[in-house]
Amino acid sequence: MQHVELAELTPELLPFLGMAARLQLYAFEALAAVAAAAPGLEAKVAVSSAAGAALTRHAGLVEEIRRRDDDPIEAMRPYADAVAAFAAQVAGSDWREDLLSAYVVFGLLDDFFLHLAAGLPGEFGERSARLLHEDAGERALAVVLQREIGADPRLADVLALWGRRLVGDTLLMARSVLSSGPGATDERIEPVLTEIIAAHTRRMDALGLTA
Amino acid sequence: MQHVELAELTPELLPFLGMAARLQLYAFEALAAVAAAAPGLEAKVAVSSAAGAALTRHAGLVEEIRRRDDDPIEAMRPYADAVAAFAAQVAGSDWREDLLSAYVVFGLLDDFFLHLAAGLPGEFGERSARLLHEDAGERALAVVLQREIGADPRLADVLALWGRRLVGDTLLMARSVLSSGPGATDERIEPVLTEIIAAHTRRMDALGLTA
Repeated sequence: MQHVELAELTPELLPFLGMAARLQLYAFEALAAVAAAAPGLEAKVAVSSAAGAALTRHAGLVEEIRRRDDDPIEAMRPYADAVAAFAAQVAGSDWREDLLSAYVVFGLLDDFFLHLAAGLPGEFGERSARLLHEDAGERALAVVLQREIGADPRLADVLALWGRRLVGDTLLMARSVLSSGPGATDERIEPVLTEIIAAHTRRMDALGLTA
Repeated sequence: MQHVELAELTPELLPFLGMAARLQLYAFEALAAVAAAAPGLEAKVAVSSAAGAALTRHAGLVEEIRRRDDDPIEAMRPYADAVAAFAAQVAGSDWREDLLSAYVVFGLLDDFFLHLAAGLPGEFGERSARLLHEDAGERALAVVLQREIGADPRLADVLALWGRRLVGDTLLMARSVLSSGPGATDERIEPVLTEIIAAHTRRMDALGLTA
């Protein structure tokens, strides 16, 4: 990962932790709903394990908020409406679209937060980065998606189209996280977006889908 | 916990592990759905942590199945229809009834499986019992239920009624797990049911509800 200067983009520590914790809770809910809706046991087990990974990240970020003697609920509360609106935007029309949503959205957002973590003060950045670096079950989700695409060739086109729509909404969500200070210029933001989109393209390639 | 002779009641090891693993996966799904439906962040966080505990148990039981060189998916598959039918029976009409369902049903079933684990061969019983003994987030669920009941006094009657209906369905589900061998007589089964119902009554008392 290329290291760009991110201190000017990274929001204050508490907003970072609060929003990241809230998003991981949403990732958990979204993945658990896909697991419940998936008809096959293999898919249920794989997607559940990814949901568990999101919950572990959520718990780790909550722990970081507590370390500061802040209240995790209060730290997450400001992002409830934005997350609910975003969840409605990226809701698919069946469990396979919802699974692609989780794969695409949390792939992008995890990378984005990982970049921003480099701008956090003290050891918070390092610990947050370690949390977000841990396996999020992405590989397990890709295996389920590949199996579904293999079983229904028309699905590839539907998911490729759906994936392209998700990227725009997710990048807008990501930008809303950034510090609104004078240093958060387009020149600083662009290289970060370019990198996380490149990683997204590699994830779509892994599914045989055009990004 | 009183130790009754359970070797005659406990199903074979693989059916035990397969059904217990499938039920914990269902517990995870049911609790995650309650977390997603709960309007408040406190409730979301508490119920999510209980969902995570169910997923940890599920993963532990899957690991026990792998230790035997059996396929976890195949071991769980025979119970899919029974679990789906049971899930429909214990589905409430809103997230608070669903939360009581989870509290009552998994409270009873965890106790029941814990009893049966004593009849399992080798170290499987000990390890399964240790898994099922771990905190399932029951206390966290009770706190959320108490808060909801405190905020809406009419809810106590609704939940007490709902709880009584759940017990019958859950005990039927539990009995279906038992070995159907000649040793699984009513005289052997009754003391186990009496004990798990007593523990259930204590859990309902903790909510201020009549069991």
